[in-house]
Amino acid sequence: MTGQILLVNGPNLNLLGTREPHIYGTETLDDVEALVTRTAADFGLSVRAVQSNHEGELIDAIHAAREDCAAILINPGGLTHTSVVLRDALSGVSLPVAEVHISNVHAREAFRRHSYVSPIAAFVIAGCGVQGYEFAVRRIAALLAD
Amino acid sequence: MTGQILLVNGPNLNLLGTREPHIYGTETLDDVEALVTRTAADFGLSVRAVQSNHEGELIDAIHAAREDCAAILINPGGLTHTSVVLRDALSGVSLPVAEVHISNVHAREAFRRHSYVSPIAAFVIAGCGVQGYEFAVRRIAALLAD
Amino acid sequence: MTGQILLVNGPNLNLLGTREPHIYGTETLDDVEALVTRTAADFGLSVRAVQSNHEGELIDAIHAAREDCAAILINPGGLTHTSVVLRDALSGVSLPVAEVHISNVHAREAFRRHSYVSPIAAFVIAGCGVQGYEFAVRRIAALLAD
Amino acid sequence: MTGQILLVNGPNLNLLGTREPHIYGTETLDDVEALVTRTAADFGLSVRAVQSNHEGELIDAIHAAREDCAAILINPGGLTHTSVVLRDALSGVSLPVAEVHISNVHAREAFRRHSYVSPIAAFVIAGCGVQGYEFAVRRIAALLAD
Amino acid sequence: MTGQILLVNGPNLNLLGTREPHIYGTETLDDVEALVTRTAADFGLSVRAVQSNHEGELIDAIHAAREDCAAILINPGGLTHTSVVLRDALSGVSLPVAEVHISNVHAREAFRRHSYVSPIAAFVIAGCGVQGYEFAVRRIAALLAD
Amino acid sequence: MTGQILLVNGPNLNLLGTREPHIYGTETLDDVEALVTRTAADFGLSVRAVQSNHEGELIDAIHAAREDCAAILINPGGLTHTSVVLRDALSGVSLPVAEVHISNVHAREAFRRHSYVSPIAAFVIAGCGVQGYEFAVRRIAALLAD
Amino acid sequence: MTGQILLVNGPNLNLLGTREPHIYGTETLDDVEALVTRTAADFGLSVRAVQSNHEGELIDAIHAAREDCAAILINPGGLTHTSVVLRDALSGVSLPVAEVHISNVHAREAFRRHSYVSPIAAFVIAGCGVQGYEFAVRRIAALLAD
Amino acid sequence: MTGQILLVNGPNLNLLGTREPHIYGTETLDDVEALVTRTAADFGLSVRAVQSNHEGELIDAIHAAREDCAAILINPGGLTHTSVVLRDALSGVSLPVAEVHISNVHAREAFRRHSYVSPIAAFVIAGCGVQGYEFAVRRIAALLAD
Amino acid sequence: MTGQILLVNGPNLNLLGTREPHIYGTETLDDVEALVTRTAADFGLSVRAVQSNHEGELIDAIHAAREDCAAILINPGGLTHTSVVLRDALSGVSLPVAEVHISNVHAREAFRRHSYVSPIAAFVIAGCGVQGYEFAVRRIAALLAD
Amino acid sequence: MTGQILLVNGPNLNLLGTREPHIYGTETLDDVEALVTRTAADFGLSVRAVQSNHEGELIDAIHAAREDCAAILINPGGLTHTSVVLRDALSGVSLPVAEVHISNVHAREAFRRHSYVSPIAAFVIAGCGVQGYEFAVRRIAALLAD
Amino acid sequence: MTGQILLVNGPNLNLLGTREPHIYGTETLDDVEALVTRTAADFGLSVRAVQSNHEGELIDAIHAAREDCAAILINPGGLTHTSVVLRDALSGVSLPVAEVHISNVHAREAFRRHSYVSPIAAFVIAGCGVQGYEFAVRRIAALLAD
Amino acid sequence: MTGQILLVNGPNLNLLGTREPHIYGTETLDDVEALVTRTAADFGLSVRAVQSNHEGELIDAIHAAREDCAAILINPGGLTHTSVVLRDALSGVSLPVAEVHISNVHAREAFRRHSYVSPIAAFVIAGCGVQGYEFAVRRIAALLAD
Repeated sequence: MTGQILLVNGPNLNLLGTREPHIYGTETLDDVEALVTRTAADFGLSVRAVQSNHEGELIDAIHAAREDCAAILINPGGLTHTSVVLRDALSGVSLPVAEVHISNVHAREAFRRHSYVSPIAAFVIAGCGVQGYEFAVRRIAALLAD
Repeated sequence: MTGQILLVNGPNLNLLGTREPHIYGTETLDDVEALVTRTAADFGLSVRAVQSNHEGELIDAIHAAREDCAAILINPGGLTHTSVVLRDALSGVSLPVAEVHISNVHAREAFRRHSYVSPIAAFVIAGCGVQGYEFAVRRIAALLAD
Repeated sequence: MTGQILLVNGPNLNLLGTREPHIYGTETLDDVEALVTRTAADFGLSVRAVQSNHEGELIDAIHAAREDCAAILINPGGLTHTSVVLRDALSGVSLPVAEVHISNVHAREAFRRHSYVSPIAAFVIAGCGVQGYEFAVRRIAALLAD
Repeated sequence: MTGQILLVNGPNLNLLGTREPHIYGTETLDDVEALVTRTAADFGLSVRAVQSNHEGELIDAIHAAREDCAAILINPGGLTHTSVVLRDALSGVSLPVAEVHISNVHAREAFRRHSYVSPIAAFVIAGCGVQGYEFAVRRIAALLAD
Repeated sequence: MTGQILLVNGPNLNLLGTREPHIYGTETLDDVEALVTRTAADFGLSVRAVQSNHEGELIDAIHAAREDCAAILINPGGLTHTSVVLRDALSGVSLPVAEVHISNVHAREAFRRHSYVSPIAAFVIAGCGVQGYEFAVRRIAALLAD
Repeated sequence: MTGQILLVNGPNLNLLGTREPHIYGTETLDDVEALVTRTAADFGLSVRAVQSNHEGELIDAIHAAREDCAAILINPGGLTHTSVVLRDALSGVSLPVAEVHISNVHAREAFRRHSYVSPIAAFVIAGCGVQGYEFAVRRIAALLAD
Repeated sequence: MTGQILLVNGPNLNLLGTREPHIYGTETLDDVEALVTRTAADFGLSVRAVQSNHEGELIDAIHAAREDCAAILINPGGLTHTSVVLRDALSGVSLPVAEVHISNVHAREAFRRHSYVSPIAAFVIAGCGVQGYEFAVRRIAALLAD
Repeated sequence: MTGQILLVNGPNLNLLGTREPHIYGTETLDDVEALVTRTAADFGLSVRAVQSNHEGELIDAIHAAREDCAAILINPGGLTHTSVVLRDALSGVSLPVAEVHISNVHAREAFRRHSYVSPIAAFVIAGCGVQGYEFAVRRIAALLAD
Repeated sequence: MTGQILLVNGPNLNLLGTREPHIYGTETLDDVEALVTRTAADFGLSVRAVQSNHEGELIDAIHAAREDCAAILINPGGLTHTSVVLRDALSGVSLPVAEVHISNVHAREAFRRHSYVSPIAAFVIAGCGVQGYEFAVRRIAALLAD
Repeated sequence: MTGQILLVNGPNLNLLGTREPHIYGTETLDDVEALVTRTAADFGLSVRAVQSNHEGELIDAIHAAREDCAAILINPGGLTHTSVVLRDALSGVSLPVAEVHISNVHAREAFRRHSYVSPIAAFVIAGCGVQGYEFAVRRIAALLAD
Repeated sequence: MTGQILLVNGPNLNLLGTREPHIYGTETLDDVEALVTRTAADFGLSVRAVQSNHEGELIDAIHAAREDCAAILINPGGLTHTSVVLRDALSGVSLPVAEVHISNVHAREAFRRHSYVSPIAAFVIAGCGVQGYEFAVRRIAALLAD
Repeated sequence: MTGQILLVNGPNLNLLGTREPHIYGTETLDDVEALVTRTAADFGLSVRAVQSNHEGELIDAIHAAREDCAAILINPGGLTHTSVVLRDALSGVSLPVAEVHISNVHAREAFRRHSYVSPIAAFVIAGCGVQGYEFAVRRIAALLAD
């Protein structure tokens, strides 16, 4: 099996490892991207990684994925709860979408319980820390192998 | 009558003609911009067109319209339902606003029934496909001629 | 292309041109019916017009359209917001439905933002004044020509 | 002072005096119309009375009032809570509107606490029985005398 | 046992058998009225049938039932969900009310789950197709025999 | 017929005639109390008048009414919308309660549409200006005469 | 036609005939089961009856119905309003479901108006007393004969 | 590292592999329990598995886990959305809780979007099919190793 | 005075004294049952105690109380907030019901503020710890002595 | 043990024994204050009692309790449901608060189910009649003895 | 510039400096009044200060301000969230209103986020501690100087 | 005291002085930045100012503030009401946040009454015009001096 995963990390995730470590842990964005790349390689998959604090750049990257990606792994950060345009971009490219949150968003403020992405995602993993990204790659590999 | 219309297409509309064609049809963004320009010319109006997936760029374009435009024709895409800043930009420039949606947003998900733009728009056209842009130009022409 | 459009104007629209002209303009119901007939003729379509303040008569007219009409152009007036039976009549006859409002209902009282008709309509035009009827005929013609 | 009041009694009020007398009392619709006429005469006002179970007929009567009436005294019955078209008819004719309910609607089922008419009425009287009609005529007379 | 049932079919039910047959089946209004009459006869009961798309006519018919009917069997159609005046008419005549819906309204749009009639009905049958009318007559017969 | 009415005017009504005259008119509290006393006298009734900006004093006055009053005529002012203790005081003394508002509260802010008093009142009059007090006295007289 | 109906009576229905007879009547659970069995036999259908106050036992019985039943007739009692697992069990076995309530649940407490079962039921009968079970068997027989 | 995981599968999960396979797949409960046991063994962990359609038995099993388990892996089925007692049992034993759903509950009926368990869970995995159980074991192992 | 009280403790209360002692204290279920029995004896009353994590068993016990009990003292645990069937069982047996909670449920999560039992209880005591059971017995004794 | 309890009775409780005795019983405020004083004496506690219909006087009394009281026993009457300032006063003095209601407020109007006081109270007793005050004193004594 | 400011501090603010100092700080009401007076003097303004726990006294003071004040500076305390009469008093006297809260009410309980005063205030300052009063005086001075 | 303040002005604030001056006044963004810099200098503080219509640029600037700023003064414009990512950026950098609005947002459209920023801000100032920025600097200086 060959193929590429687009890894998308949304706003504020560049702070990973430094921002509120009691919630988000101490691993950095580089650690996450290395983990995803390494796990994907085990299944013969490559990874293109993007992080941006700009919603528009995230959408551009998602649009570009139509050319050369087989799936999208996204942690939309705070845009999870507010962005219809991100949802529309994801559903517009017709690829399987994996939604990952580092913390258990269901156990935090009420407004974090609603996700515009979940209803169009293939699956959702929340609260597994950085390990959740690894699980998501494994599940994507299984879906692509079907 | 002379004057210029700012044509604004929001996030994901660059995918027009390729994304979910059962909802949005097969005409492309180029087709839309050509149609609007052609129709406007019939009324002696020119058009400046902008499309962006970046909310900030849309706002900048709207601000600039104060200099040389007589009206704004906007399809805000998914921002329709979430963006107060887009609304504030539109009401800040004090030009008549035409709101167009290609699909009938009232017949889709519940969250698409609320628009931050409609209460400050002069009129709203939804579900007429690309033809809705043509109608909007005609109506703008009539308003400007008053 | 041949065919007939049923033009339905709901309660209070007989007052058009005299009632609250700052909201509804100065053109009368006769003007509207002439405009619709003239525009339809440009596309080889005929028109049967009905206006009533009686919900039941509107339903009877819609039922009758099954015999000899190809589409329904309706401004349901205040029934837009309250009438399930009107909606049921429209969906019962299985013709494309065009919903038109003279004023921009989205910019008025909160109860005017909900429409029982929109989810079963092909398209919705609000706030284009009497010109909205003309646009609706053009769109119907395009739909019938497909 | 001269002038005419349109007295409108809505659906089911023809049953007055026989229907649920523990709520509505034992006086009949004839009694009400006689009382209103007699009271109006004391102020040099005449009365045209209409009762109908048909919403459309009520609207037609209200429209006609534009020709020869100075005020409308209405007990909309159950339409109070559901009819936007009745409200639109009343606000369309631009006459002062008096809203009367025989029973205290605020002390009954929850759905009777909302009125589409009250926000456009000059005043509202509820729970004074048939005497409420008399008070409404007196108030109308005072308003017209201003 | 002798007595008469008023059979009331509300708006759009004249289309029965032709409108949306996947929801409402293929039997016509004539079939329904014949079934009800035949079943009633088995219990020595007669039937007076009315169907109208006019709310006001339905109310008039219900009022008239006070003279010569022992029960009312009603399928209010879309008025079920919106009409306080129909409810008031039914509770005003003080006869047992049977509410029947051909389709299972509970499994359709959310607005069809609320009924103004149910709280004042003796019983409610939904989703049994035309057979629901037969059951309603049997139940009415049992109630009248008590 | 003999008896006494307790006339209660709630917070801010001492400003009557000076505060927001476009809403409340130009008659003063003294005018109101004189009007009520004069009208009551026509029916052989006396009046004890109280006005206070202190909720507790209003409750004390209501309690005292059990001794020597036959009815309570109250304009609760802004307490209408917030005070459970005032409601409890009124229902605790078991006298008929007349609720009067000078302006049409139903046509103002949304929070003025809810009244804690209305469900326990005999009747409610809103928007008749100072004349509403006169009507209330007349109705009380009728109730006491029954 | 041959086949078996699973008759399920939920919590508290073992009290039938003794509990609140003004609501539920005087017939016992034995009477209900005999009536259902007798009616089914008229159509060549057999019946297996279960009653339990244990949600878990009801689910087990529903699961077992996949082996040898053609339809399920259920009065879920109070579980109607709260049990997602019961609903899941019913939709999991893919048999037509008949929902019966002895009393008219729509005319009782507000929380009884919501049913988790109705949206997945074929039909719903409420308020026909024990006779409702008989009607349900007749309707099931008709459905199975199609 | 040594220790034991309590694997809890709630109501209807005994039907796994046979019930609605388009939603839940074709693997059986035995397959799930074998997968969990095998994965746990890789980390030196043992598993005790329980499935029941009885809420009470699930609670008993959770209580017992205090004696000899280090974590709880639970798929609560439909109880997810309604059971406060299950939540109380889970929070009462003070062990880390992993919540797994085979399907993506966020993309189904609205009532499945609320979970009583998520706010007290360490993490939530939904829509990864049976593989989600494997991920949960891996995450538990990581948590226990910290 | 003679008579028997049914003491019902719902799910998770078998953990009393060991589960979350900062909320529920250190006294055990045995302590509670001894306290209730001892207090009841002071008033010549006997006690039958039941605790179960199975909703169905609680209902069975409540049904049985009709034979030989004069009152029910219940701490429904988490079922307080979700169980209509428990409520139905309690109201079905027509005995006075005392509702007790060890902790002050009003000061905890929002979902603990709604009780299905309170509206049919004679009284409610929350937050008095185990002493609340003693108070409940005293109140029951007073009620039975009336 | 020595110490003093502030006993606060809110608006309308001066009517106790005379107002709506079917709800509040026949014992008077004097009886309540005597009962509380007598019970407190059994535990070596004294009592200062205040009743007022004025919210401000209640707050002043609560403030004063900081000087010489160890706990506050309050029946806030109707202020329970509306008064943030009373809540603020109670939480401002940092003493344990006992909330008592004579009737079972949970079984009355919906607006009586919300209490601003309960979330900051140590415990709540409702529906035990005047005996509830005695229980509250006993619980306060236990708390102070800890 | 000359003029006087009415400084109003609502219920519980007499406790300032002693009550919950982690929220409200350690400065006393005397400190606040001195600060306001001193700051006002810098702008040639005088101050009349009132604090009361009695809503009625606050209203009386506000009414009196019509005579000799140019603006009102108010910290309504807990009345912010519940008092319509306070709002009516403030809007009745037609002076500019400054609303100040010592703590950031937006970051506390949900019920503290609604203010009846804010919609009629000129400005709102929350969370600046006692310094917020100083800012308010400066802003009032600027408004009066315009 | 030394230190730097990040001054952030959100979307549309570049229009200040020209956009809707009846709401926002006539001072420009340059005026605001000069005022803030001048006031800060009085306290020995420097200022770095950023304005952008791009949410992503605002987040980038906030992230950068971790390096060299001691506090953030932000007027988020319309993002106040919709942006979780802005809130997350602000709470991620762990600096005190001052929220300023030029107009009194509480007195405008309902959607402007909710702020995602306020619950994590130190204080909020609304409606003081440009002067509000000055107050915010003063308060920041006081906080930093503590």
